[in-house]
Amino acid sequence: MKKYDKLTKNAAGRMVPKIVNGTEQIPFQGVGKYKPTGRKFGPRISSCVDYPDDGNKTAKDLKEALIKSGLKDGMTISTHHHFRNGDLIANQIFDIAHELGVKNLRWYPSASFPCQEHLIPYLEDGTINRIEGSMNGPLGKFASEGKMKGLGVLRSHGGRYQAIQDGEVQIDISVIAAPTADAFGNANGVNGDAACGLLGFALGDSQYADKVIVVTDNLVPFPAIPWQIHGNYVDYVVEVEKVGLAERIISGTTRITKSPDRLLIAEITAKFCEAAGLIYDGFSYQAGAGGTALSIGNYFGDILRKNNWKARFIRAGSNQYPVALLEEGLVEYILDGQTFDLEGVRSMRENPNHINTSPFTSYNYHGKGNFASMIDIVVLGATEVDVNFNANVVTHSDGYLLHGIGGWQNCLFSKCTILPIPLFRDRIPVIRDEVTTLCGPGELIDVIVTERGIAINPLRKDLIEKVKDSGLPIKTIEELKAEGEAICGVPEKPQLGDEIIAVIKWVDGTIIDSVRKVIT
Amino acid sequence: MKKYDKLTKNAAGRMVPKIVNGTEQIPFQGVGKYKPTGRKFGPRISSCVDYPDDGNKTAKDLKEALIKSGLKDGMTISTHHHFRNGDLIANQIFDIAHELGVKNLRWYPSASFPCQEHLIPYLEDGTINRIEGSMNGPLGKFASEGKMKGLGVLRSHGGRYQAIQDGEVQIDISVIAAPTADAFGNANGVNGDAACGLLGFALGDSQYADKVIVVTDNLVPFPAIPWQIHGNYVDYVVEVEKVGLAERIISGTTRITKSPDRLLIAEITAKFCEAAGLIYDGFSYQAGAGGTALSIGNYFGDILRKNNWKARFIRAGSNQYPVALLEEGLVEYILDGQTFDLEGVRSMRENPNHINTSPFTSYNYHGKGNFASMIDIVVLGATEVDVNFNANVVTHSDGYLLHGIGGWQNCLFSKCTILPIPLFRDRIPVIRDEVTTLCGPGELIDVIVTERGIAINPLRKDLIEKVKDSGLPIKTIEELKAEGEAICGVPEKPQLGDEIIAVIKWVDGTIIDSVRKVIT
Repeated sequence: MKKYDKLTKNAAGRMVPKIVNGTEQIPFQGVGKYKPTGRKFGPRISSCVDYPDDGNKTAKDLKEALIKSGLKDGMTISTHHHFRNGDLIANQIFDIAHELGVKNLRWYPSASFPCQEHLIPYLEDGTINRIEGSMNGPLGKFASEGKMKGLGVLRSHGGRYQAIQDGEVQIDISVIAAPTADAFGNANGVNGDAACGLLGFALGDSQYADKVIVVTDNLVPFPAIPWQIHGNYVDYVVEVEKVGLAERIISGTTRITKSPDRLLIAEITAKFCEAAGLIYDGFSYQAGAGGTALSIGNYFGDILRKNNWKARFIRAGSNQYPVALLEEGLVEYILDGQTFDLEGVRSMRENPNHINTSPFTSYNYHGKGNFASMIDIVVLGATEVDVNFNANVVTHSDGYLLHGIGGWQNCLFSKCTILPIPLFRDRIPVIRDEVTTLCGPGELIDVIVTERGIAINPLRKDLIEKVKDSGLPIKTIEELKAEGEAICGVPEKPQLGDEIIAVIKWVDGTIIDSVRKVIT
Repeated sequence: MKKYDKLTKNAAGRMVPKIVNGTEQIPFQGVGKYKPTGRKFGPRISSCVDYPDDGNKTAKDLKEALIKSGLKDGMTISTHHHFRNGDLIANQIFDIAHELGVKNLRWYPSASFPCQEHLIPYLEDGTINRIEGSMNGPLGKFASEGKMKGLGVLRSHGGRYQAIQDGEVQIDISVIAAPTADAFGNANGVNGDAACGLLGFALGDSQYADKVIVVTDNLVPFPAIPWQIHGNYVDYVVEVEKVGLAERIISGTTRITKSPDRLLIAEITAKFCEAAGLIYDGFSYQAGAGGTALSIGNYFGDILRKNNWKARFIRAGSNQYPVALLEEGLVEYILDGQTFDLEGVRSMRENPNHINTSPFTSYNYHGKGNFASMIDIVVLGATEVDVNFNANVVTHSDGYLLHGIGGWQNCLFSKCTILPIPLFRDRIPVIRDEVTTLCGPGELIDVIVTERGIAINPLRKDLIEKVKDSGLPIKTIEELKAEGEAICGVPEKPQLGDEIIAVIKWVDGTIIDSVRKVIT
């Protein structure tokens, strides 16, 4: 099987393959242009006849559960990443597959992390054909150097749910690491020693996978409440000594930034939002878990406090900062997609207004709407932005694929999408003529905030009008680019080969760009 | 279209049609004998492109929403019955259909009630072809007299979910009356003036119907939390002045019985359970909302208190009595399928251990198990039982179809199913040679408790052994039947015609019996 075939230019002007890993693909057609036909995937109909009356679905160990699930060559195995860099289960799955001599697996994680560098030998020996999912760090480097046998496919969190729901990716076996479960398979992330908050990234997997294995280190009597995952979708339950390292869900970025430049960016961003009238009693926002974004959230808190307003909800990635706003009563709800620290976990367990969500609810573009488009302000990061406001979030300017998309693409549909970014990183300008990899079309990106000024997308005449007398440093994006280049020089293009090593899906399942091999 | 065709004798010895309303059917093959093949129903894939970015899906009124949903001849329209006899919306739907001249609709309620007697003219004039769902009271009488144009199809709550999931019933438009909703369609039953507790009966409808309309009298800003129904499945939201009469969710039976005979039956039932060792620290039970069942629940509470035990959970239909046990700490969880009084609603709103469930979780036989089979003791009613322990729950001994199946069939899979019934009602013996309508196969019914003795199914040698020295009045079912007939005389057979007016589905979608026309 060729990794890819039949290159074509898509609506964004990017060359993308029409065949990926042997399957036909649809090139990106423009935002909102592709409309799906057909029906959602229908999993096999099960029967209670085939499951124990007493609800006890425990298997001896993960190996037995995988064998009973029919693990064999060429299957698709899914995992979730709620443990982030503290995941312990994915490596075990492929250790077992390797031991059993199973080959050519597709790994479909909701994201992969450096702790899974352990899998590189299996990618080399053909146990794993490819990863479809974000590849943070070493696995991304491995793929970037053209070493992965199959082609990588990167999807947003919403796109991952869409691909499952639409039958684009059919999961043979889903393994769901769960901090708490009962023997029937009901599971949650809020209780237990390894509590990681929620299991929303595994929801679609549980609903649509042919076989579902829940792995837990906290087996409780039925019912495990809350049942974030329903046992009615589960085939086997496996008890292990330790299911994950909850302390490692804290990514390195979940602290307020101390960098003066980034604090300045955060302050300018908050002032912009206030001046543009985006903050009001009952507004909503999403800020990521990066240091700048967290700082912006704090500024928003100040503005709410000052006006005696409440936010209706924060869309999170939660951590101690939004939790503090919730507990202070400045925010009515946190709608949480993944917890980034143990305060987030505690709050979700204790506070009925801290709601666990899933990509189905928040992000799936092939639903009857989703709530990403209803959020007033979304603050996102980017590795690069270009003069057409297009943005990149997966590759660095040297071409290395080191990050996943996360919910980033899905969030672009908010009422106002703001990218607060430094003008340069490591003396490399962030604003470019053209992004290395196109992840988000410029028409969806409204505002770029840097430490040296704000560029508003010319499409947003309303915003330009609202802040024209604000005294804020409003500039064109070309001006910002020039300032960056005046300091750092015009950046060189990355050394990329012709070979494609991964593709980037848009939220509707079409291919928006290709990622090319880095010449080392 | 013939109402039915091709009669055949099924595995229970009952004559059932192989064609119903033009669709092929599978005759009952025995408990656990039929195994489904094929895949779950796949609803059309939607796209956010077709839904408003701001999440506002409100339509002017129900008529506009029905027209936008494409209401036309021959469609299937579903409703839920969480308002029980206080429903206000089903009648309005068919008033609108009648006004628009739409004909030949299939109404697929999770149950119908006397308040919907209003629909009889539409059943007569062909607006509605048939009701597939329970027909309590006047609608059942109408069907029993052979007046419904199409054939009635009765399913258990689990069977209703199964039929939707398997694509056996494809719902064109689902109308979900909701005590609280937001404009995106997120909805719940716990808040608002018309709070009825939960919306679990509408879950499958929301997931699988082509178009979904939420109707509410309490429109709140996004997000309506808890989102028992996800707006991501919803097409239109309609605001009305009053969505239902919550005070009428109280059925006439939700009071502890005062009848000395029934209190005696309750006491004997509780003593039996205690003697048989069915009650232990961590046990679970389900008792319905009838007066006898409620009284049994109170006896169970006494036994728990006496032993310093806790029940792990009560499966409910909740009302003030199980709520009191939960609040006293005698029970860890209530797993609730429908609230039967406002105390149940309050508890579900306030108590995180009072869990709202759906037929998917509790009853769907075509899932990977369901929790009905995990319950230690289930107490159910019956209109008739026969000497082979077969039971009837839908027709009276005069042949009139006056009740639905509810969760009754699904509950038979519990570890011990007990039917506490009086030996006679209105001087008509309840234990018969053969039930008028077969709803539950005798092999699943373990114990019959009457005011004059207990009959244990000979298949349950374990129970017979356990209570043999208990001093309880253990008799054979033939002995109980003889006692009833000695008092009331041998009952006459009902006057039934050959014509079939409805069929009874088993939990797996096969047909277990037919209901015949009553000769008036």
